[in-house]
Amino acid sequence: MTTTAFIGLGAMGYPMAAHLSRHAAEHGGAALVWNRTASKAHKHAAEHGSRVASLSELAQADVILSCLPTSASVDEMIGRLEGQLRPGTLWIDCTSGHPDAARTQRTRLAAHGVRFLDAPVSGGTSGAQQGTLTVMLGGPADEVEEARAALPFAAKVVHVGNTGAGFAVKAINNVLLAVNLWAAGEGLAALAGLGVNVSAALDVINTSSGRSNATENLIPQRVVTRQFPVTFTLGLLAKDIGIALDVVHAAKGSAPVLAQTGALYDAAARNVGTDVDHTAALQFVERMNAREIR
Amino acid sequence: MTTTAFIGLGAMGYPMAAHLSRHAAEHGGAALVWNRTASKAHKHAAEHGSRVASLSELAQADVILSCLPTSASVDEMIGRLEGQLRPGTLWIDCTSGHPDAARTQRTRLAAHGVRFLDAPVSGGTSGAQQGTLTVMLGGPADEVEEARAALPFAAKVVHVGNTGAGFAVKAINNVLLAVNLWAAGEGLAALAGLGVNVSAALDVINTSSGRSNATENLIPQRVVTRQFPVTFTLGLLAKDIGIALDVVHAAKGSAPVLAQTGALYDAAARNVGTDVDHTAALQFVERMNAREIR
Amino acid sequence: MTTTAFIGLGAMGYPMAAHLSRHAAEHGGAALVWNRTASKAHKHAAEHGSRVASLSELAQADVILSCLPTSASVDEMIGRLEGQLRPGTLWIDCTSGHPDAARTQRTRLAAHGVRFLDAPVSGGTSGAQQGTLTVMLGGPADEVEEARAALPFAAKVVHVGNTGAGFAVKAINNVLLAVNLWAAGEGLAALAGLGVNVSAALDVINTSSGRSNATENLIPQRVVTRQFPVTFTLGLLAKDIGIALDVVHAAKGSAPVLAQTGALYDAAARNVGTDVDHTAALQFVERMNAREIR
Amino acid sequence: MTTTAFIGLGAMGYPMAAHLSRHAAEHGGAALVWNRTASKAHKHAAEHGSRVASLSELAQADVILSCLPTSASVDEMIGRLEGQLRPGTLWIDCTSGHPDAARTQRTRLAAHGVRFLDAPVSGGTSGAQQGTLTVMLGGPADEVEEARAALPFAAKVVHVGNTGAGFAVKAINNVLLAVNLWAAGEGLAALAGLGVNVSAALDVINTSSGRSNATENLIPQRVVTRQFPVTFTLGLLAKDIGIALDVVHAAKGSAPVLAQTGALYDAAARNVGTDVDHTAALQFVERMNAREIR
Repeated sequence: MTTTAFIGLGAMGYPMAAHLSRHAAEHGGAALVWNRTASKAHKHAAEHGSRVASLSELAQADVILSCLPTSASVDEMIGRLEGQLRPGTLWIDCTSGHPDAARTQRTRLAAHGVRFLDAPVSGGTSGAQQGTLTVMLGGPADEVEEARAALPFAAKVVHVGNTGAGFAVKAINNVLLAVNLWAAGEGLAALAGLGVNVSAALDVINTSSGRSNATENLIPQRVVTRQFPVTFTLGLLAKDIGIALDVVHAAKGSAPVLAQTGALYDAAARNVGTDVDHTAALQFVERMNAREIR
Repeated sequence: MTTTAFIGLGAMGYPMAAHLSRHAAEHGGAALVWNRTASKAHKHAAEHGSRVASLSELAQADVILSCLPTSASVDEMIGRLEGQLRPGTLWIDCTSGHPDAARTQRTRLAAHGVRFLDAPVSGGTSGAQQGTLTVMLGGPADEVEEARAALPFAAKVVHVGNTGAGFAVKAINNVLLAVNLWAAGEGLAALAGLGVNVSAALDVINTSSGRSNATENLIPQRVVTRQFPVTFTLGLLAKDIGIALDVVHAAKGSAPVLAQTGALYDAAARNVGTDVDHTAALQFVERMNAREIR
Repeated sequence: MTTTAFIGLGAMGYPMAAHLSRHAAEHGGAALVWNRTASKAHKHAAEHGSRVASLSELAQADVILSCLPTSASVDEMIGRLEGQLRPGTLWIDCTSGHPDAARTQRTRLAAHGVRFLDAPVSGGTSGAQQGTLTVMLGGPADEVEEARAALPFAAKVVHVGNTGAGFAVKAINNVLLAVNLWAAGEGLAALAGLGVNVSAALDVINTSSGRSNATENLIPQRVVTRQFPVTFTLGLLAKDIGIALDVVHAAKGSAPVLAQTGALYDAAARNVGTDVDHTAALQFVERMNAREIR
Repeated sequence: MTTTAFIGLGAMGYPMAAHLSRHAAEHGGAALVWNRTASKAHKHAAEHGSRVASLSELAQADVILSCLPTSASVDEMIGRLEGQLRPGTLWIDCTSGHPDAARTQRTRLAAHGVRFLDAPVSGGTSGAQQGTLTVMLGGPADEVEEARAALPFAAKVVHVGNTGAGFAVKAINNVLLAVNLWAAGEGLAALAGLGVNVSAALDVINTSSGRSNATENLIPQRVVTRQFPVTFTLGLLAKDIGIALDVVHAAKGSAPVLAQTGALYDAAARNVGTDVDHTAALQFVERMNAREIR
């Protein structure tokens, strides 16, 4: 009977933890939840049958899952639990964290006999709700195998490399999202300026070689509609781009397009805001072009 | 009974014209073909039942379809046919041409009573073979409607705007392909440098938000395999990027990411060659990173 | 006794033509002036002793000097004079023009026996007043030698290559100005954000390896003072950057930094305006950084 | 009678320390030197009358000057001296270091009563020899005033801000050098491709608005001559660009041109090497353009 504890009931974590509750109900075991703002944990317990845990209960879980805004928040949680952790626990961190932090955290927890895996997820809030997330895992193969059973919110679990590799792949995925989105914004703004119907252009591009998740989903659903619903903030994407550029630097790589795009997202965040949806970055593309994308 | 003539039996045109032959056989009408190197036209006639046309026969067709490397080649064909064209003909140009050229060509042909539509296609050689191309049409609505019947190689025909809009959308599609491909190359080179398995990373990205046609198809099939099969050359993609930047300029737009990427493709073409497959541009990304993407 | 005619009495041309008047008074010969808005020519005649010319008088001059906003304006003037030009005239065009235009103009004028040299100038309005301009000449060596005597406003005359080379060098000079200025703006905005005194930083940079005309003159005099006096507009600089990128393209070159900077100036022009001083482009750098450079 | 100790007798430090010796000989006081490879210190003593110091002698100096490759080397020296330092010493670090390191080092040394100032220099090896360096100082005003007397190798000493500001300004200076150099390389490669004489073009640019230290000195002396004499390595410049981008990040700035240029220098360093002169980066510009700059 496994006890699993989930830390961080944000936009992603809340529905992810619901899958843990359901899984525990069906297969036995306990699903504990913890959140900095405790009321959210109580709401989760009421809605999904999880159990609100104290920090010391958390610390005794067989598996700890965390999903927090940044690696710094994970460091802080480790600090709060450090004295009470028990050997043998597997800590699976689903934060979009920093590869350097993963290595430090793994070493720090190893001193307590706790194994740390970086396990960021992709698929957005809808994937979290439907339990169709992709998890990219970094760490030793045997621990990764052990972790698979603890991820009932995932449709796909891929072992991508050693500790930190999960965070690295996630960061690169997100910077590609950022580039694909921005470039499409630049191109569509130009077409709009020539009187081309943007939706018709997207219709064509989406059966052609220039298509991406940005042209297939994000721009038609969020930009052309002018709704920009906030599911993943521009501030968090800008942070992830920063991690990606650190990944390039650590690899002694050269990535001029990623670097340039990162700087442009920084300008967008300065001008459009950090708490808006990440697709609102295209509002800065629109400002640069003095023209709306629609 | 419609007579349709097809000019330009290259990698795309050859299979596209085959659909015209089949269509004529099934629905009546004649399918003429013409190619600068005549032997290719004779081969097409033998293989697909089309009829090799003289220039003067071409000029009398109800519908002329062209698919040539550049707008300059189309200008040259117009020059060769100009004295013999007859009023009423519809000229549908499937070249990846230049919007400015489209406007000039339409005006020039209008003097002979011939209507010109820009109608570039997307879908690659496999789409041409299977008859599943997307056609993006620029021109007046009524002529576009008339053109639909003459495109048996298309699964999707979209009217994107006035004369030149088809070429503009195609160019923007292709520059997005170029950016998505290059950025993925930069990101994957960094991951490779950190010991991440590139195929595992692609596997993850392709169920995540950073996915694009480049990560889903081009890189796994052409780059990771080191095959770089030549279906669309780097030289032609570089030309299309140049058209896209002209589109941005004509729109008085600002597209720093597209502009930088264009310059990098120019460097790649200088170093890797122009007759290689467009995906071989990533060999220059590899050189910049001193590391293979795999 | 040489008759020299000057076309285009703008911010640069007006003081340049004054040197012609003085030179004619001292050495003999006649100095004619012409301007689209005739009142400016009459003012020049009154102030500097030049003579207002009719178009037909202009056309008969031994040397025609022009200094207009763009090559298109020069084309227009050639059109107005074409029927009246006489063989043997030397036309020296000080416009910041396009190399392609220079070649076309030279050919067009050669049909009338008129020799055309591209001869853009550098040194700004103060250099024009003081007669210390630099002239970069493109054309055959013997004609360039002949032209030297006709440039009393120049302190330095350099033969840089064949027809068009003068315009090419001028465009590259101006894009370097643009890059040096923009990059300095980015760097100083960051320093300002960290509480570094911008003037102290400029003081240091200007005795160090990062110095440029932008840090030595433009930013201290125009940006830090918030005066942005209009001597050379952002619109004209943006035009010159466009010519520079065409030069790169014609050379089959790869210039990612120039290309990106060009796109950013386009965004600046869209947002800050085209009739402002070119240094006001840094107001867009400030917007991107949400911080003033001072 | 002041005792001054100099740590790090590299290309810059060796001649800088010679000024300390001369100053001590003229004004009284002692000039100690220390170098990781001791033979260089002995050579300095023989040539310039300095005195080779042991670590414990170093630690007792009134003023410690250091000039090392990176902040990490300075950290290492602090570690070796930490137990022996005496309160009241002023440590002036002339390394091109990292602003974050400056703050950490100042705090660390403050625990021993030692005051740390960041004091990077500019002017190159010739400025070091002639005693005409510029020093940019970061720290409290009173300590900066005290430091002025200890810098006999400087022609200009500027207080640019708080601790770290000196390193920040130096990094920004160096990234501007990098951008100005690279952009000039791109522009000149294009001109060379059009048959323009590069030296004539530089002659013009250097009396025009596009001039910079790169066009006035580096390119004519090092690139056009094909000599690329190693006085400041590409590896160190690439490191400094990295610091500059960290400065931009710390300032929450947006610097797309600096970021792009940084990535291109990384590619150059990967391909041309890190131990070559920094101007050899233009060999990668030449490769991108398939053309020499001359």
